[in-house]
Order: sequence, then C-alpha cells, then structure tokens
Amino acid sequence: MEKELQLRIDKIRARLVEINVDACLLSTSVNLLYAVGQVVNGYYFIPAEGKAWLFVRRPVGLESDHLLYIRKPEDIPGLLGEAGVTLPDSLMIESGEISHADWLRLQACFPHTRLVNGTGDLRYVRSIKTDYECERLKLSAKAHARAYQQIPSVFRPGMTDVTFSIEIERLMRLEGNKGLFRTFGDMEAFMGSVLTGDNAAVASPYDFALGGAGDPSNPIGANGSLLKEGKSVMVDMCGNFTGYLDDITRTFSIGKLTDKAYKAHQTAIEMEDRIQEAMKEGAVCENIYDLSLAIAAREGLSDCFMGITQQAKFVGHGVGLVINEPPVLALHSREILLPNMVIAVEPKFIIEGTGAVGLEDTYIVGKNGSEKITLVEPGIIDLMKV
Amino acid sequence: MEKELQLRIDKIRARLVEINVDACLLSTSVNLLYAVGQVVNGYYFIPAEGKAWLFVRRPVGLESDHLLYIRKPEDIPGLLGEAGVTLPDSLMIESGEISHADWLRLQACFPHTRLVNGTGDLRYVRSIKTDYECERLKLSAKAHARAYQQIPSVFRPGMTDVTFSIEIERLMRLEGNKGLFRTFGDMEAFMGSVLTGDNAAVASPYDFALGGAGDPSNPIGANGSLLKEGKSVMVDMCGNFTGYLDDITRTFSIGKLTDKAYKAHQTAIEMEDRIQEAMKEGAVCENIYDLSLAIAAREGLSDCFMGITQQAKFVGHGVGLVINEPPVLALHSREILLPNMVIAVEPKFIIEGTGAVGLEDTYIVGKNGSEKITLVEPGIIDLMKV
Repeated sequence: MEKELQLRIDKIRARLVEINVDACLLSTSVNLLYAVGQVVNGYYFIPAEGKAWLFVRRPVGLESDHLLYIRKPEDIPGLLGEAGVTLPDSLMIESGEISHADWLRLQACFPHTRLVNGTGDLRYVRSIKTDYECERLKLSAKAHARAYQQIPSVFRPGMTDVTFSIEIERLMRLEGNKGLFRTFGDMEAFMGSVLTGDNAAVASPYDFALGGAGDPSNPIGANGSLLKEGKSVMVDMCGNFTGYLDDITRTFSIGKLTDKAYKAHQTAIEMEDRIQEAMKEGAVCENIYDLSLAIAAREGLSDCFMGITQQAKFVGHGVGLVINEPPVLALHSREILLPNMVIAVEPKFIIEGTGAVGLEDTYIVGKNGSEKITLVEPGIIDLMKV
Repeated sequence: MEKELQLRIDKIRARLVEINVDACLLSTSVNLLYAVGQVVNGYYFIPAEGKAWLFVRRPVGLESDHLLYIRKPEDIPGLLGEAGVTLPDSLMIESGEISHADWLRLQACFPHTRLVNGTGDLRYVRSIKTDYECERLKLSAKAHARAYQQIPSVFRPGMTDVTFSIEIERLMRLEGNKGLFRTFGDMEAFMGSVLTGDNAAVASPYDFALGGAGDPSNPIGANGSLLKEGKSVMVDMCGNFTGYLDDITRTFSIGKLTDKAYKAHQTAIEMEDRIQEAMKEGAVCENIYDLSLAIAAREGLSDCFMGITQQAKFVGHGVGLVINEPPVLALHSREILLPNMVIAVEPKFIIEGTGAVGLEDTYIVGKNGSEKITLVEPGIIDLMKV
C-alpha cells in the first residue's frame, strides 16, 4: 500500500508542477482517503518537491515519520517552519468543496500565500485510476454483480418499490456493500434508487440520470408505489464494496411490458455496446454522448431518452471514490478519455405507462476500447417468472 | 403546511432584523427543506421585509406565485429587479457550508452587497423547533422505538457486528426509516453504528460520541467483530423517519457482563434522569455537561466516560434535520437552553474487555424540565435470553 500511496502522491505532485503551484493542502475526506489511504480529520501538505507532511487532529494514536498532531489548522505553518519547510508562495486547496468560512481560516493561516482552487485538478488526477484502483473497482463490480443476480429472489408480489428496495439493500450489504453513497456537489441519496411505473418520470432536484419522487426530504427514487403487473422496475444501486464505487442498473418487469419498452431496452443495450467500443484513449466525451443521441433519434426515441419532463444531458459519468467523477459523457463536454478512466454508462428511457427501461454498466477505458467490469445479464428479467 | 412554512420564514426574518441584515439567500438542501418544505436545487431569497422569492433550477414543474425558474444564480439579481426588489446592502448566505467557489460566484452576482455568514444563525433558528417540528420528531421517535424493540429478534449466535447491523438497518427501514443520515460538517456515517467489545474503544476521526474502527474509507462503527459471549453490543442508529432525526442508543449483551459494566450502565441511566430534570429553559449547556462529569467522578468512572483513548467532550447534542444541531451539552458551552430545543443525551462508558455501555435518548426541552420522546426500556438486554 505504501508504494500505491506514493504513486498517488506523485500524480498530485505532477499536477502541481504542471500548473506551477508550490504545494497543496488536502482536507476533504475523499482526497485524504485517496492520498493517505484512510479518512482522517486533518490536513495533508504535499509540496511539488520535498517531503509531504500529514497533520492530524483525529483519530489519536496514528504514527508515521511524516505525521504530526495538531489541535487546529493555525498550528500548521509553525510546524512546517520547525520542519525546515519554507511556506509556499502558492498553495492548492479544495476551494470547490471546503466552505468559504474554512477557506478564510486557511487564508489567515497562510497570509502571504496565494490560494489556488484545486478541486478540479484533484478530481482530474483521481479520474485516471492507478492499476490498484482499477482492481478495487473490479472487486466492487464483482460483489455488486453477485448481489444483483440475487435480486429476483427477494421479490414478492404485492410489494412496494420501497420494500423491494429494502430487501435489495440488505442483499447488497450482505455481499459487503459499505452503504455510504459518496457524491460530489449537492446530490444526496441513500443507497440508490428503485423506480417503477410513473414514478420513474418524476423530475428530481438532483443531477442523477433519472428522478423519482422519493420523499420531500430526499426527492429521489422510490416513493411507495406498488409493483404492479405490466410495469418495469429499474434498480440503480451504488456499488460501494471497496471504498470505490462502481455502478450497475438493471431493469426488471412485473409480467410482460409493451413492445415499445422492449425495443427501447434493446436500443439501450445496443447503445452501450457502441459506446463500449467508442470509449478509448483520445475519444472526446461529447462525441460519445452525441452517438447515443443519434441512436435514440434513429429509433424514434429521442423524446423519452434520459427522461421526459426533465432530460439528463449525459449518458455516462466517471466513478471512483465518489459516484460522480469526471469525465462526463455529456453535451458539449470536450473532456478526452484516457486509459484507466472508469466510466459508468447508463442509457435509459422512460416509457409512459410502463416506467424506466435501460441499463448501466461500469467500464475501464483502454487504448482500443473499454472493458466492461459489471458482468450481469443485460436483458429485462420478468420477476413473475423466476 | 403553508402556515408552518410561514412561521419558519418569520423566524428567519426575526433573526435578520435582530442582526440587522437586509435579506438572506438560502441554497443548501437542509435550509431549503426547512424553509420550502422540500429539497429543491435553487435559492430562496428572504428579505427582512417584503415578499420572499424562490428561484428554482430543478426540478421542473413546480408552481407558486413566488417561484421563478432560473438557469444559474447569475439570473437572480435581474429577476429581483424585474419584481421591483431593491438589491440588499447586506445578504446572509450559508458561508459555513457552501464552498468558497460558490461563495465567490454569489459575491459576483451581488457585487455591491456585503455577504454575511449566516450558517450559525440559521442553525440557531432551526435549533428552536416549532410545535409542528416537535410532532415530527415525536413521530420519528415512536417509529424508532418500534424498530429498537424488535432488535433482539434478529440476533443469531455467531453473527458479526456488521451482520447484526444489516438486520437492524432492515428493521429500521421496514418501520419507515428513510436511511439518509444528514450531518453538519465533516462527519460521514451510513445509518449508524453497532459497537462490540474492544472495537468500541477505537478512536475515530469523526466527532461522534464513540468511535469504532469501521473501515479505512469510513472509519466509524462496526468492523466485522464477532459478537462474543461476555461482550456488550451498543446500537446507535439514527432515526430519520420523518426527515427529522431523533437519536436512540441501547446496549445489549451476549450473556452476562462484568459488575463494572452493569454499574456503569446504571450510572448512565442515572445521568440521563438527572440531565432530563436539568435541561430546562435557561439552563447553561456546560453546567449540564459538568453535572455528567461530576456523576462519572463520584462513581470512579471518569477515565472511561465517553471514550478511553479519545474522550468526547460532550454528553448531548441538538437533533433535527441533521443529527448534530446546536446546542451541544459540551465543555465550555455557554449556550442557553430554550423551550422546543430537541436534544439527544448520550452518556456512555467504555469498559475494557467488555465494550461500550450506556444509552441515548431524545428530549424536548420545556420550561421546567424536558420530555423524553424515545420510550424504550433503558436496561441492558441479554440477547442470549430472548
């Protein structure tokens, strides 16, 4: 693990050099988990050159030759001085994530230092996984697939979407899902969403692919709808089995759906196959999104692609320590794919009167295409037949 | 609900008048949920005097005579102008929660306005619940208690703390728990924690009452320990049954514990009783914390009160839309209790070789004492005997 962490720190250093910033000071849970290997309450000072110093407030009892305990961030400059470190002229901090109040406090700690917003840079660094991280994602994906394969076994006629969700959550947890669903930005979700019937079309405040009414306090996903004959049930649960989050969506049905629903689902499967080939080193994200739009248009399904009343303008997103990392396969996104980016592709359609159809799988981008790591049968499974 | 929301907005207005600020602009999920009654992606402009305006980005389809759709916050000043609103000289925003980058963006939207950090003010406003909010908390507490009463039924010898936790989570969800565990600040937790044996003493990076090793990616709570004879099992799961979070902790045992463990547990029960009486209008929080310290000292239990290696310096905390609201019954806290503050009191001890004992209940502060709303048997329940 020490070598792995060194590799990650070197990636951060390389970015610092690239943008000509002297050092960074990490303080968010996700970036500390990335660079330290565990969540601590503290600050990680990583200079472009020289020794990195971890300043920890909690937990007590950690030991390392580059770790110092602090009571408050105001202790950091003095401790750096004692360690012979010249305070940086420029310092990258997570200004897109830490509060303005915390930012002011750090600026007061380093009054002569120019603070640089590194949120985007760090998200970019994290978007290109190390081989070890890819292995963690594959492990997550395998456990996730094992849980999904058991979903039909917990279905009972007369269930609501919420009850079905609860039993699926338990399956996921028993397979090792840690439960926590980390997001970047304002999105909040419990373990994921189960959408059936008309609820699938309800617009949400969050930037997820589809919505669902949920509850006023967390308006996403299941809302207590009965799972009724002729409706689809879309299960989109996050796969946090290793700290790294893969993503899988599968569609189930209660009995038979309409021809349009099966056709749209088949179109989603074809989209994924085409996108899998297209996602390779050098590909531009908007082109992949446009490819999905073209396929939807060819099939006459543009008006129900990624929603009806509120259509998401993307068909895939990076995953990793949080569920929404760069790059995003989105409208106008000029991001370029690179090997070891890990992307969840989720072509979905809303069929009025039926619910959502489509699927989602996680891929690792390679030189000549991408590798699917979520190996679950893609077709719609009829829960009445199993 | 309209009257209730008006009451909340009037409370915010009163605070604005008190601190002499012209208006506030809310944008965090929790404050929007508080003031709008549902989570939206947008901004709520509430002037000290005059009409409030809700600016919504998502979801589509909302309608109200004071609601306008926007694409971005930069649209707000123009729309306010069109509505005949003079831009405020001072504007309260949630600077303790929104990112520095978002703060800069809002400042650029209102270049001639002084932005005031309202995070603490809004948390204070929310800490004094309306009667309706107290009813919601009581409903949460009742459902929470129903779930806790069923905990012994899901215990099986040979379980780990994680498996026990999973079955308790399911019980909670089936009783209506929404799952989401909202915190203020850097704390992250899934639905709560189950601590057994030595794991209870493991220090955590988070500011929870007790720790537990958890997992490097979320170091809190259960870590896969077997539930062994002679060990305690402390269950501290959050009660989000209505969007409002109450808190209950109960201690179970696998067979018989040591005399010291029972004595400490009895001391915790006594502490809660004494604190219940002491928590009344006008009481100072530090005095209540000091009362708990005095009782721990009298029983010779100071060194294991609220932890061993890392002792939490509080014995209770406000609850509401998030699990950690003001006031905190903490060392040096000069906060004054007022009627309708809702406080979770959690005296806990770590007994080496046994695990954690103690409990937690939620109280509504009144004029002459406080009302316990979490009615569950307080004693240690032996899981081998049920």
